[in-house]
Amino acid sequence: MSNFGFMRMRLVDAYEVAYHEAKSAVNASDVLLHSEQFPTVADAVSDCALVIGTASLGHRALQHSLRRLEYGAEQIRQAAERESVALLFGSEKFGLSNEDMSHCHWLMHIPTREEHQSMNLGQAVAVCLYELIRSEEARMHEPATVRGAAAAEVERVSEMLMRALRESGYVQTLTAESTERKVRRMVRRLALSERDAQLWAGMLRQILWKLGKT
Amino acid sequence: MSNFGFMRMRLVDAYEVAYHEAKSAVNASDVLLHSEQFPTVADAVSDCALVIGTASLGHRALQHSLRRLEYGAEQIRQAAERESVALLFGSEKFGLSNEDMSHCHWLMHIPTREEHQSMNLGQAVAVCLYELIRSEEARMHEPATVRGAAAAEVERVSEMLMRALRESGYVQTLTAESTERKVRRMVRRLALSERDAQLWAGMLRQILWKLGKT
Repeated sequence: MSNFGFMRMRLVDAYEVAYHEAKSAVNASDVLLHSEQFPTVADAVSDCALVIGTASLGHRALQHSLRRLEYGAEQIRQAAERESVALLFGSEKFGLSNEDMSHCHWLMHIPTREEHQSMNLGQAVAVCLYELIRSEEARMHEPATVRGAAAAEVERVSEMLMRALRESGYVQTLTAESTERKVRRMVRRLALSERDAQLWAGMLRQILWKLGKT
Repeated sequence: MSNFGFMRMRLVDAYEVAYHEAKSAVNASDVLLHSEQFPTVADAVSDCALVIGTASLGHRALQHSLRRLEYGAEQIRQAAERESVALLFGSEKFGLSNEDMSHCHWLMHIPTREEHQSMNLGQAVAVCLYELIRSEEARMHEPATVRGAAAAEVERVSEMLMRALRESGYVQTLTAESTERKVRRMVRRLALSERDAQLWAGMLRQILWKLGKT
């Protein structure tokens, strides 16, 4: 929850011993420390305008519309702009009961393989919250990446490599021109970063020095 | 992994005791049973054409381009159509080492809050694999949902509710017409399902019967 910026955890009928232990642990998270306990689902969601239950496909309750996470998250994002929304998870073993679900406006499921009826609770929460904060724009835009080497740098590497190939006897006189073109194209395909072009230049300089001594 | 249909797990230098125990457990999953062990990262990814490491923003290694999950997953999906791709996760405590990362083509990070340097390993794996299988179309399209009630059914419910309101003295003669319009609009706003319209009709029928007896 904290990883994705969701800070309000509410527990219904929590197992007191485990809850108390977790809360008083040295490394208890802020989310856990500020979590609240409620005796019933109705109490826990009383101030929420929208309550979404999570369910697997197998538990499909015909009384509710069951929406795929990708679609449901879009609805939740829109609603959350103007009202409080609760996302309700059941226990890992049994999921939400029919009584729990009767407090929900609709249900949402994670698109897992049909063979699987249940999912680890922590993983299910992480996946749902990730979908809520994921950015469609981030999918489209190339991130600021390592700076590419300028053409002159790339050409310098090509030249040095060609020299090393000539001096080591790799280049044959008859095919020298076509080999040179081949090498130049190959070096461009490497799409070297500024940093890597410098690295290559340094390595080749050393190799050329050694080749010159033999 | 299995939830999202990823069946090939490879372990590098696994802790033998825990690995053996997990594998021989009664409920060991197929993924675990068919998992393979390797002494080094190089061995584990030797047949993969693309190797992606996972890292947090804090561990940013300048030697690699670090891509946000949404963007990285798109690249991985495209590559996976023609070649084997490995997704490399480090230990929860230390993440990937610089040596591990040197086998990666680029790195990917989950968009978590900057306050958090690390994430539960199982949750990180679940979130990454979910992003790989999530469907952009599913986000756009309303799912097959509960069938809405036909206009005639909705009108029947409105009529019955109006009759109950008249018989119980809620409707005043002077404002009867505007009250009727208000009730009709209100019932439409409920956007009743076929099933719920029938439920309402049944409930109102019973109430009308009882009102008729008083």
